[in-house]
Amino acid sequence: MAKIGIVGSTGRMGEHLIKNILENEALELSVLHVFGELTRDVPSDVLVTNSMKAVLENCDVVIDFSAPEATQELCEEALKNPTPLVIATTGFTAHQQNLLKEASKEMPVLYASNMSAGIALLKQLVEQVAATLEDFDIEIVEQHHRHKVDAPSGTALTLGEFAAKGRGLDLDAVRVSGRDGQIGARSKDEIAVMALRGGDIVGRHTVGFYNDGEFLELNHTATSRETFSKGAIRAATWLVNQKSGLYSINDCLGI
Amino acid sequence: MAKIGIVGSTGRMGEHLIKNILENEALELSVLHVFGELTRDVPSDVLVTNSMKAVLENCDVVIDFSAPEATQELCEEALKNPTPLVIATTGFTAHQQNLLKEASKEMPVLYASNMSAGIALLKQLVEQVAATLEDFDIEIVEQHHRHKVDAPSGTALTLGEFAAKGRGLDLDAVRVSGRDGQIGARSKDEIAVMALRGGDIVGRHTVGFYNDGEFLELNHTATSRETFSKGAIRAATWLVNQKSGLYSINDCLGI
Amino acid sequence: MAKIGIVGSTGRMGEHLIKNILENEALELSVLHVFGELTRDVPSDVLVTNSMKAVLENCDVVIDFSAPEATQELCEEALKNPTPLVIATTGFTAHQQNLLKEASKEMPVLYASNMSAGIALLKQLVEQVAATLEDFDIEIVEQHHRHKVDAPSGTALTLGEFAAKGRGLDLDAVRVSGRDGQIGARSKDEIAVMALRGGDIVGRHTVGFYNDGEFLELNHTATSRETFSKGAIRAATWLVNQKSGLYSINDCLGI
Amino acid sequence: MAKIGIVGSTGRMGEHLIKNILENEALELSVLHVFGELTRDVPSDVLVTNSMKAVLENCDVVIDFSAPEATQELCEEALKNPTPLVIATTGFTAHQQNLLKEASKEMPVLYASNMSAGIALLKQLVEQVAATLEDFDIEIVEQHHRHKVDAPSGTALTLGEFAAKGRGLDLDAVRVSGRDGQIGARSKDEIAVMALRGGDIVGRHTVGFYNDGEFLELNHTATSRETFSKGAIRAATWLVNQKSGLYSINDCLGI
Repeated sequence: MAKIGIVGSTGRMGEHLIKNILENEALELSVLHVFGELTRDVPSDVLVTNSMKAVLENCDVVIDFSAPEATQELCEEALKNPTPLVIATTGFTAHQQNLLKEASKEMPVLYASNMSAGIALLKQLVEQVAATLEDFDIEIVEQHHRHKVDAPSGTALTLGEFAAKGRGLDLDAVRVSGRDGQIGARSKDEIAVMALRGGDIVGRHTVGFYNDGEFLELNHTATSRETFSKGAIRAATWLVNQKSGLYSINDCLGI
Repeated sequence: MAKIGIVGSTGRMGEHLIKNILENEALELSVLHVFGELTRDVPSDVLVTNSMKAVLENCDVVIDFSAPEATQELCEEALKNPTPLVIATTGFTAHQQNLLKEASKEMPVLYASNMSAGIALLKQLVEQVAATLEDFDIEIVEQHHRHKVDAPSGTALTLGEFAAKGRGLDLDAVRVSGRDGQIGARSKDEIAVMALRGGDIVGRHTVGFYNDGEFLELNHTATSRETFSKGAIRAATWLVNQKSGLYSINDCLGI
Repeated sequence: MAKIGIVGSTGRMGEHLIKNILENEALELSVLHVFGELTRDVPSDVLVTNSMKAVLENCDVVIDFSAPEATQELCEEALKNPTPLVIATTGFTAHQQNLLKEASKEMPVLYASNMSAGIALLKQLVEQVAATLEDFDIEIVEQHHRHKVDAPSGTALTLGEFAAKGRGLDLDAVRVSGRDGQIGARSKDEIAVMALRGGDIVGRHTVGFYNDGEFLELNHTATSRETFSKGAIRAATWLVNQKSGLYSINDCLGI
Repeated sequence: MAKIGIVGSTGRMGEHLIKNILENEALELSVLHVFGELTRDVPSDVLVTNSMKAVLENCDVVIDFSAPEATQELCEEALKNPTPLVIATTGFTAHQQNLLKEASKEMPVLYASNMSAGIALLKQLVEQVAATLEDFDIEIVEQHHRHKVDAPSGTALTLGEFAAKGRGLDLDAVRVSGRDGQIGARSKDEIAVMALRGGDIVGRHTVGFYNDGEFLELNHTATSRETFSKGAIRAATWLVNQKSGLYSINDCLGI
């Protein structure tokens, strides 16, 4: 029975993870990392700690839904005590992304900006359509709840990267995040990644391909945050048996 | 039989206007304004001219689908020779907007950033929903073909103004046209007006209202540019019998 | 402090109602009606009973999210002991609908196939658009989770009734629920009400208006079932102070 | 320079085909089949005939956008005079479908219920998603203009067949075309193919995959009928150089 540790226990996703792991008889919730205090009740045999070192010493696999700085600390500590890591945090700097790669040489690391099966498949479809329908303009729209603090979502950026890859482009060079004023006609290569916010939307992502006479729009909608917590748990259960390396959800799903 | 003059004859909308007026036996196409040359064939009894003065002298009502500078010249000339004006051009400066108002004291002027009946009604619905569902976040998305040079569309800005009006807000103070980076949680009053471009999309506008637990999305899609040319012709036919004043499509439709 | 009784305690909506009432300090959950057994824990001072008579004797207002037969029994009993009734059950026979009207002569009865504010407003918009854009074809699509047993949803039928009302039509005479084969061109008056099922969709309703050149689509999406339970509780709090009569959510919202 | 013959010249698609072929300098419009009379002007060197035999004798490849009976006559005649056939007609009986297969033994036959590149790719994506996300419920919605006489569209049925294929199912055994009444919970295998009609919609198709927690929706929208006529012409240009056999648009696009 895999012992699971959580980094990011006090966030919205932490709450779902705790609930879903406790409901699952095949799993053991062994340790929770907190910066401040944990307000939620957890069984008395679960260790609650401020120490990343203690997290790593008390579990078989870590699930991390936190913030870039916390993930950085987790990776630095894990390099001293290699442990399978499922990383769902987004918004990394180049240095932090590099740290993930370094860590993956010493332990299995699964990194995904989105833990759902639908998004994992959508990334592949987007690359495929971008490559096949090469004359079509690509535009991406994402929408999340009013409390989300970063934009665009990590998932939207990932989808943009797959679209750019299908075209042999670098997303950073072609990405547009807003349009205002006398901007002129659309350039063929640009890829807009637009962020909408409002209400309690869990997550909507649409990748559109537009040409004269026709268009294709591929939409993914998350209807419940448990899509992400259950996806992360499925990934952790799989990752615990893998060798060192950097993995994606697609590896875990075998697609 | 109303004699119609067109300013903006060489553009895409000019082409539809010429076709739709020639098809309509109750109307007479009397004069076309061009800056350069008209490449399309028109009946020999239609006057083609570079002079706004000549346009105004040779018709009962002008339909203008041009650019802000051309509309400015039209209004200045019309103040010397008052003639009903249907103005469908967008992107005016404050000075140009004021000129429209001045002109409307001397002649009937119908100004609309969008000539369709659906958009005219949608503006009313948007104000109504914004006022009634006061806790809902408002986000607007518009999409047009890859050749459109300005953003957001005049129609999207008009819809934003009606949304702001329903909340007692000023659109300029709350409008957002892109989101990128660590932007923090959404503020209650902000209204995004996001512009997508691609393919040959005639025009799609969605005004969304988002709250915890539910959302409403009102979408208008133009499937053919003739919606606009036929709407402008309907407006011209109506305007020719009105007194001086500034009118909207809603006045023409009686809604 | 209003004492609330629930009919339909063991269903999905019953669960949300119990949770939302217990969370709300201004309300008292006094009695739950069950047919079989209640598997959920509730505070010991809440009466759990199989008797509609006991329900009515132990609360100030009833919220009913059950099935037509249970609502019928509730109304019959309430005629002997008049009590404000919030009815959210759908799928009534003509006889049962009539019984609601009879009951409303003796007590305040609020009946709504959907308790959300957004749907209440949407009904009005639909009637308004149907009346104004009289040449547009009307089509309605609803989608719900895979477990829903009736189709189309009560809400979709209500929206269809408001659309028909805007046209001076009777929904029963013009409603279409599927299309298959060589069916011929669309008749002007028909209104399709199509039901999609799948996943855990809480509720999506789109009313579309289609004409040559343009269309309008008005969509409502419920993102959480608490929209309905909180709406029913808001209605109950309001209804307890009203006179006898048949009310809608719109009366409660003052729209 | 390929000589093209058209069966179905007097229909809406025939009109687009004639225009697009005449505009294209690399092609020659050689013969048009009509049942009654052709009201449209065509160059004097184009043969207009009631005889399928004459059509086949006067072209290198036939494009057929007609009706099942006309296509049947075309195939029967072509078996006597083998000629490459691009068939875009829909609504065939089993006997007529078999006739297409017979014809394809003697000549190259490209059959597609939809000539657009986007739909050709979408069929592949649908099969792929259906196979990968095996727990997701599948629902298909199509929408066309108010004049379309058959339902669901041939394209929607084709998309349904690819979805069914991805699941190892037979569409005929699991297809649902409407839902009304107390129908019970959704069965896992059923695939709804719902047809909406209204306005001048050229063609919208959405294939949705719905699970607990998330859904994917793949939408194709045709914004202009020229998508189909240009796609058919591209197919004809390609087919004229192929061996006998039954082909799809995907073969022509190399996807």
